Amino acid sequence: MDRRKYTIGIDFGTLSGRSVLVDTKDGSVAASAVCEYAHKVMEKALPDGTPLGADWALQHPGDYLNVLFETIPAVLKESGVRPEDVIGIGVDCTSCTMVPAKKDGMPLCMLEPYQKSPHAYVKLWKHHAAQGQADRLNQIAKERGEPFLARYGGKVSSEWMLPKLMEICEEEPEIYQAADRFFDAADWICLVLTGKESRSASSAGYKALWHKKSGYPSGEFFKALHPLLEAIPSEKLGTEILPQGALAGYISAEFAKHTGLSPRTAVSVGNIDAHVALPSVGITGPGKLLMIMGTSTCDIVCSETERLVPGTCGVVEDGVLPGLYGYEAGQPCVGDMLAWFVEKQVPEEYKKMAAGQNMDLHAFLSGLAGRLSPGESGLLALDWWNGNRSVLVDAKLSGLILGLTLATRPEEIYRALIEATAFGQRMILETFEEAGVPIKELYACGGITKKNPLMMQIYTDVCGREIFIGSAKESPALGAAMFGAVAAGRAAGGYDTIFDAAQAMGRVEEKSFRPDAKRAAVYGRLYQEYKRLHEYFGRGGNDVMKTLRALRSRL
Amino acid sequence: MDRRKYTIGIDFGTLSGRSVLVDTKDGSVAASAVCEYAHKVMEKALPDGTPLGADWALQHPGDYLNVLFETIPAVLKESGVRPEDVIGIGVDCTSCTMVPAKKDGMPLCMLEPYQKSPHAYVKLWKHHAAQGQADRLNQIAKERGEPFLARYGGKVSSEWMLPKLMEICEEEPEIYQAADRFFDAADWICLVLTGKESRSASSAGYKALWHKKSGYPSGEFFKALHPLLEAIPSEKLGTEILPQGALAGYISAEFAKHTGLSPRTAVSVGNIDAHVALPSVGITGPGKLLMIMGTSTCDIVCSETERLVPGTCGVVEDGVLPGLYGYEAGQPCVGDMLAWFVEKQVPEEYKKMAAGQNMDLHAFLSGLAGRLSPGESGLLALDWWNGNRSVLVDAKLSGLILGLTLATRPEEIYRALIEATAFGQRMILETFEEAGVPIKELYACGGITKKNPLMMQIYTDVCGREIFIGSAKESPALGAAMFGAVAAGRAAGGYDTIFDAAQAMGRVEEKSFRPDAKRAAVYGRLYQEYKRLHEYFGRGGNDVMKTLRALRSRL
Repeated sequence: MDRRKYTIGIDFGTLSGRSVLVDTKDGSVAASAVCEYAHKVMEKALPDGTPLGADWALQHPGDYLNVLFETIPAVLKESGVRPEDVIGIGVDCTSCTMVPAKKDGMPLCMLEPYQKSPHAYVKLWKHHAAQGQADRLNQIAKERGEPFLARYGGKVSSEWMLPKLMEICEEEPEIYQAADRFFDAADWICLVLTGKESRSASSAGYKALWHKKSGYPSGEFFKALHPLLEAIPSEKLGTEILPQGALAGYISAEFAKHTGLSPRTAVSVGNIDAHVALPSVGITGPGKLLMIMGTSTCDIVCSETERLVPGTCGVVEDGVLPGLYGYEAGQPCVGDMLAWFVEKQVPEEYKKMAAGQNMDLHAFLSGLAGRLSPGESGLLALDWWNGNRSVLVDAKLSGLILGLTLATRPEEIYRALIEATAFGQRMILETFEEAGVPIKELYACGGITKKNPLMMQIYTDVCGREIFIGSAKESPALGAAMFGAVAAGRAAGGYDTIFDAAQAMGRVEEKSFRPDAKRAAVYGRLYQEYKRLHEYFGRGGNDVMKTLRALRSRL
Repeated sequence: MDRRKYTIGIDFGTLSGRSVLVDTKDGSVAASAVCEYAHKVMEKALPDGTPLGADWALQHPGDYLNVLFETIPAVLKESGVRPEDVIGIGVDCTSCTMVPAKKDGMPLCMLEPYQKSPHAYVKLWKHHAAQGQADRLNQIAKERGEPFLARYGGKVSSEWMLPKLMEICEEEPEIYQAADRFFDAADWICLVLTGKESRSASSAGYKALWHKKSGYPSGEFFKALHPLLEAIPSEKLGTEILPQGALAGYISAEFAKHTGLSPRTAVSVGNIDAHVALPSVGITGPGKLLMIMGTSTCDIVCSETERLVPGTCGVVEDGVLPGLYGYEAGQPCVGDMLAWFVEKQVPEEYKKMAAGQNMDLHAFLSGLAGRLSPGESGLLALDWWNGNRSVLVDAKLSGLILGLTLATRPEEIYRALIEATAFGQRMILETFEEAGVPIKELYACGGITKKNPLMMQIYTDVCGREIFIGSAKESPALGAAMFGAVAAGRAAGGYDTIFDAAQAMGRVEEKSFRPDAKRAAVYGRLYQEYKRLHEYFGRGGNDVMKTLRALRSRL
């Protein structure tokens, strides 16, 4: 073929969605467009003022539709690319962000009778109000000896689909009954694009306990969670699960009309936002772990074998790359913790000095913190400001800092917080390796990798490994576009496999970060101390963090 | 007698000295004057630029003389009181602040040959460079089974006299040999006032291991510390020890001439600054504990019996009030920790809001923190920003805070820090009681009691006890003046005993702080968690704080 072909990757984040139109030849970005969600995250009330409970987090699906209808025409227009040269679309969303809908995909909350029902809305991944349900699910699964538990590190998170469904059944069963289908948002977007339902291995496997060989858990288990759930897979989830990279369908005539796309545009099955970034850095095989670093960090690695890794967030065959077992782990609070520190703990004096040097506070603090040696601050922290996702899987843990003296300075704490997240990262890497999932190479992408070189240096020193940095500015959207190219196939100007696509379209920066032997040695010592605190406070040696939380909630 | 009589209390602090002239009838202050030390605290270099090592803290005795020669005439002038109506003087100093001197009292550092020798200067209480010596002293005492150790909570502090003397013997033995005498500063001031040497039970007992019945430790013990020290008590300290409240002498003709005082003015033996405050709140008997709250907190209580209380700073017969056993305990970092927080951890936004309300940051944070309930922040801290003085006696411990989340606000941390010091206080009270020193009433004096009512309310709620607040603005100086009245005696217009003086001249505010049962109950729960962390990190369960400190010092 002579003419260049393009695909669109659409990435739905927590506050906005973005489309990038990329060249299938080399992954270069021809155009991109962002659209913020008008309703943002609804945490206190519905649009009509109906109040929400504690730990709620809802979204409005109309905001997702706006992303599609605004950004797709925008990237077509900006790039000047002809619609027939856009051969595929890939989509990724936060997860599990759950849409209750009618059979045709109409979200329940957009129908008049349900607009005042909080449970009819999209429950965002970080809707944590179903923690009680998650606890009960884990208890029931443990009592019944359900084999799936071990695949999820021994614990199901309240962020996943089933606790959210249990919450609906218990609190507003009529909503459960009114909804024909429940979708992870990426699958729902694919339905909007193609007019037909498809379910991805990634959302079914990571968020709804599906397994390629054994399928969903038994009806008895679901019934034990709630009688209404007994037949949920066949009734409301769908049991035909497609591997990542598979074709979900072609865009519907109606959608083509609304956006200007050609109806021959292939759509890949939905992806989870973090997972989809893997090919964007050129990873095509097992043993290469990608850290997607932002407000939180998600770790993705593939392996040729299924192992039970304690405290990972799941292992799913075909769930990240087809033919491989994809593992997810992560830290729920990385950039968020530094942002908290900068906002809540940095004195005016520092703000003035930073302004005087025309720097933002992160850059200013990084400059000062970068002059410190490992161990110099005398501080050590546990990075659990938002609980621990891996390897303890315990949202009720909280942050700790020790070694404080009257001489402790803000930049020392800033560095200690970075170090704590790096120690947490090392703990994840070691847990994988100890469980038989070797980590041969370490990659990173996401905002932090571009903005905070000190942090990357600390990570490489703490982990004692070279770190390769993804080149793309928007790794998930690029990854989604690559999956779009695979859905289109080589004959149409795309690729036959995601591995081919990754080789051609993914890449890393020329400059990697490499550990310094002397700093790594000191961090080795500090890591032992981190580990000891991690075990003591994280595994029941002292449950004070949970006691304090319980005391607080009883007030 | 018709005419009113007066006494002067002179209080030597860390940065300034102050005289108050008070009416012996009721303790009311007729005049007061302050004089700051020109040399402040010398931590980096001597006046001529000779550099000092890490953790040094020296003072210049000339600064103390200036206090005497400026403030005594000033209070005489301001009050208009006739010199013959000033019947007594009492003195208190920080301790152990040690003056190396010639027999006549001339400080070594004021003699030409020694002006360049750091060890010839006054070592301030917080000179911590002799920590190694203190560690060795404790080791030797332990190995030898020295019975005195138990009286000092099992450990001698580097702030006391013997480690400071060992340091001189080891590092500059010629200074040790050149000094005829070593004085705790209060005893030295008394020598300056009277022209003759006197040694108080308080400095000998609390800071130099003297005991009323068994005297000083043996020559063998001193020799084991350093051969030069073998006969130190008789050679350079003096073995005639006077109880608190005893007459040290009358002011010398020369001193009278220089200050305008009458040579018939009686001088009481020297006092330790914290101890001397006891009668100022009207305490005249056992079981009433006074917290002197400022940058640090000192706790003083008397008992009719000698008990070995773990981790107190000493028990000395006659050392606080004659005829009673005086116990000292304390926390090395109270106001200091809050000052650190306000300076290093409070964001600009808060500073602006405080300024907008015309409040200082402490008052502003207290206002916000005061709206929180116990347990509401979910935070718990260990108050060891400057180590632990009682009950662990371990300067190498450091501060800890846990329960941090992304929602944690500055006022929550501020309150958690206050609570931590209050828990530390409760730990001290319980340790006394468990050791057989009952605490029947709780008193407080010092700057914090006037400035931070929230803190006092938290203390009363945490300790579950009513707290009486001393009325005097300057409790130590008033206490010293009361001892001056006792030195003068009833016949001269003073009192026969410090108990009589305390009854007449001491008082507390009408409003006390009383615990709220509900808050106290929650704090009871939190205290159990504090205690568990205290034991784990403080008694070897996890020595991470020391490991971090050691790692830091090896850099």
